Amino acid sequence: MAQSEHHPGGSIGWTSVPPVARVTLSHAGQLNAISIQMWRELRRCFEEISARPGLRLAVISGQHGAFAAGADISEFSAQRMSREQVRAYHEDIIAPALRAIAHCPIPVVAAIDGACIGGGLEIACVCDLRLATDRSRFGVPINRLGFPMAPQEAAALLGLVGGATALELLLEGRLMDAEEAYDKGLVNRVVPQALFDDALDTLIRHIVAGGPAAARRNKWLIRRLMELAQGPGLTAAQKDASWDFADSQDYRRGISAFFNKTRPDFQDD
Amino acid sequence: MAQSEHHPGGSIGWTSVPPVARVTLSHAGQLNAISIQMWRELRRCFEEISARPGLRLAVISGQHGAFAAGADISEFSAQRMSREQVRAYHEDIIAPALRAIAHCPIPVVAAIDGACIGGGLEIACVCDLRLATDRSRFGVPINRLGFPMAPQEAAALLGLVGGATALELLLEGRLMDAEEAYDKGLVNRVVPQALFDDALDTLIRHIVAGGPAAARRNKWLIRRLMELAQGPGLTAAQKDASWDFADSQDYRRGISAFFNKTRPDFQDD
Amino acid sequence: MAQSEHHPGGSIGWTSVPPVARVTLSHAGQLNAISIQMWRELRRCFEEISARPGLRLAVISGQHGAFAAGADISEFSAQRMSREQVRAYHEDIIAPALRAIAHCPIPVVAAIDGACIGGGLEIACVCDLRLATDRSRFGVPINRLGFPMAPQEAAALLGLVGGATALELLLEGRLMDAEEAYDKGLVNRVVPQALFDDALDTLIRHIVAGGPAAARRNKWLIRRLMELAQGPGLTAAQKDASWDFADSQDYRRGISAFFNKTRPDFQDD
Repeated sequence: MAQSEHHPGGSIGWTSVPPVARVTLSHAGQLNAISIQMWRELRRCFEEISARPGLRLAVISGQHGAFAAGADISEFSAQRMSREQVRAYHEDIIAPALRAIAHCPIPVVAAIDGACIGGGLEIACVCDLRLATDRSRFGVPINRLGFPMAPQEAAALLGLVGGATALELLLEGRLMDAEEAYDKGLVNRVVPQALFDDALDTLIRHIVAGGPAAARRNKWLIRRLMELAQGPGLTAAQKDASWDFADSQDYRRGISAFFNKTRPDFQDD
Repeated sequence: MAQSEHHPGGSIGWTSVPPVARVTLSHAGQLNAISIQMWRELRRCFEEISARPGLRLAVISGQHGAFAAGADISEFSAQRMSREQVRAYHEDIIAPALRAIAHCPIPVVAAIDGACIGGGLEIACVCDLRLATDRSRFGVPINRLGFPMAPQEAAALLGLVGGATALELLLEGRLMDAEEAYDKGLVNRVVPQALFDDALDTLIRHIVAGGPAAARRNKWLIRRLMELAQGPGLTAAQKDASWDFADSQDYRRGISAFFNKTRPDFQDD
Repeated sequence: MAQSEHHPGGSIGWTSVPPVARVTLSHAGQLNAISIQMWRELRRCFEEISARPGLRLAVISGQHGAFAAGADISEFSAQRMSREQVRAYHEDIIAPALRAIAHCPIPVVAAIDGACIGGGLEIACVCDLRLATDRSRFGVPINRLGFPMAPQEAAALLGLVGGATALELLLEGRLMDAEEAYDKGLVNRVVPQALFDDALDTLIRHIVAGGPAAARRNKWLIRRLMELAQGPGLTAAQKDASWDFADSQDYRRGISAFFNKTRPDFQDD
């Protein structure tokens, strides 16, 4: 069975040969930059996978030589400028997609070969395992665009790598190669690209060889314990302040410089 | 002074030359697989060590070329099949033994040479320091047996290595060599086997050279802060659901395949 | 603009060439051991930096070939012997200084070249990023002095490196070289000393190139999420018990042996 939708703005495809579902991020010419349409399809795709009987494992990978290089920048001006747009983008579009992966009852593996940046890294963070090739690169370089990470997305990054690495990625806008990503816990394993398919097959075989109910229970248990360890969470007012940046001149300067391929001249006004 | 009990099903021995207590896991021919009797002795042993004046440090190691290769599989059919047996095994046998180590007021060091798997890894996780030889191996490959990790045991693993490594160990049933275990925070230090005794002596000397009250306070403080960071914990209903696997056919398939040395044919029914 | 105060007991200097503030730990002949006066100046310095407009980044480094080798031991006998002195030292002197750094709204980088020990390590732990040369060394070897770490200081260390490394540092009084400190998450990056200035310049340039409001928000967000993850914290009685060591003979033995350059003979009485 194969279900795949194609849009000019990129698409999420998925196929399943039970017990394994394979999800593909695809946005030709854009290193699979994730459009709003793709976030919506990703959510729907994982809701379907979660409801489909007979599946024991889902694998997410990217086409076109990348995992995903971030959000689709072309949508900024029309979809991500006002405070309400920004809130809706993060809370109504991204958060439900990431939640659908995190709450998918079966294990989800990110198979990463190439750029795993911004939204791509956020997807990888909510997967249960991350296998990467040695040519992969990781980061969230949004500091150059003049906006901060959204709280729920930051919480997933923090839960995976801890505060020191989260601050390093965010404050420096740092890109890490695969070796450093392994050192800092962003990925479970790094293999040469030539061995990637074999390593992924082995990983799939090991998971599928285990009891499927035990896998679901272990995923649920570890994720539940991690949620409990996050504590009470931000207040509503603190969450709301997350969108203050949308009203700033610096945000406009950052986006504008990005499109004009110039250095942003942030004024902090 | 030496106290040691011998049983056909393995035993826990301990001796003390104050200020150091040495605890030995021993189950000949079974890589020190931990029987119910051994869990009970381990609890009693650490209750005695905790009450004994003049001790400043306890070291746990294994005989017969291993730390401990897991639980004693031969006890599955008689002791770990019904839901009530499974609950009692984890809550009344294992949990109190692990708690006796974690709450032992003096530092406890796991000296690991060889297999440190399943229950052996769980013991190592609740020790305060883990020194390992380069030939040691680590894992919790219970996915092949068709049952999930118990909540308290998973919480100790999660607290030590974080979610990514906990999920990797549980979902893949992955065995890690000593280098990978060091990379992922499962052990504090890895030394060649030929240097193991010297490295352990040095470690003991450093701990014993410090103020004993300061050591007890530091252990208590770090462990208390770690407990507080776990948050409110699972509900009673969530804990109870941990034993659902005992009623499943897949659990029976997994155990049966293990004894028959066949591949389990999990059906997820 | 430059503000610097000089005292025989060491001093904290700071200068700013906006948008970067540079803070210097200096205590000649003492590897920048931090005196009470220096802790007070450090607090005032970061309160000023926090209030000064136009700054986007603060860098802390040490003079005299070290970051800071700990607290100023010469103050023990006059300032840190009674229970009330010890409490006041940690709660009224150190805690506010470390809090002023942690709560400084702009990113703070620890630029570490040489000894980063005791109070020096505590300063590094509350910075947002830690860049170190390959000749740096890290530790909190207070076990030889016979006293435990204060709760808030331990919480900052635990939040950075986790329980296994915190216990290793405290129970063994272990000094780690830069490579091990990197392996265990104590520092973000290690560079050869000859490349240190260039690496620091690059790091500063990357942070300053980002949106300043986004940097402040990201720092606040990650730190807030980390605080929430700490849970409810110790009770007042548990905090109060932190100062019990001041009444012990072993504390006096430890301090006395340190001054006499002998091995302390702890009695645990």
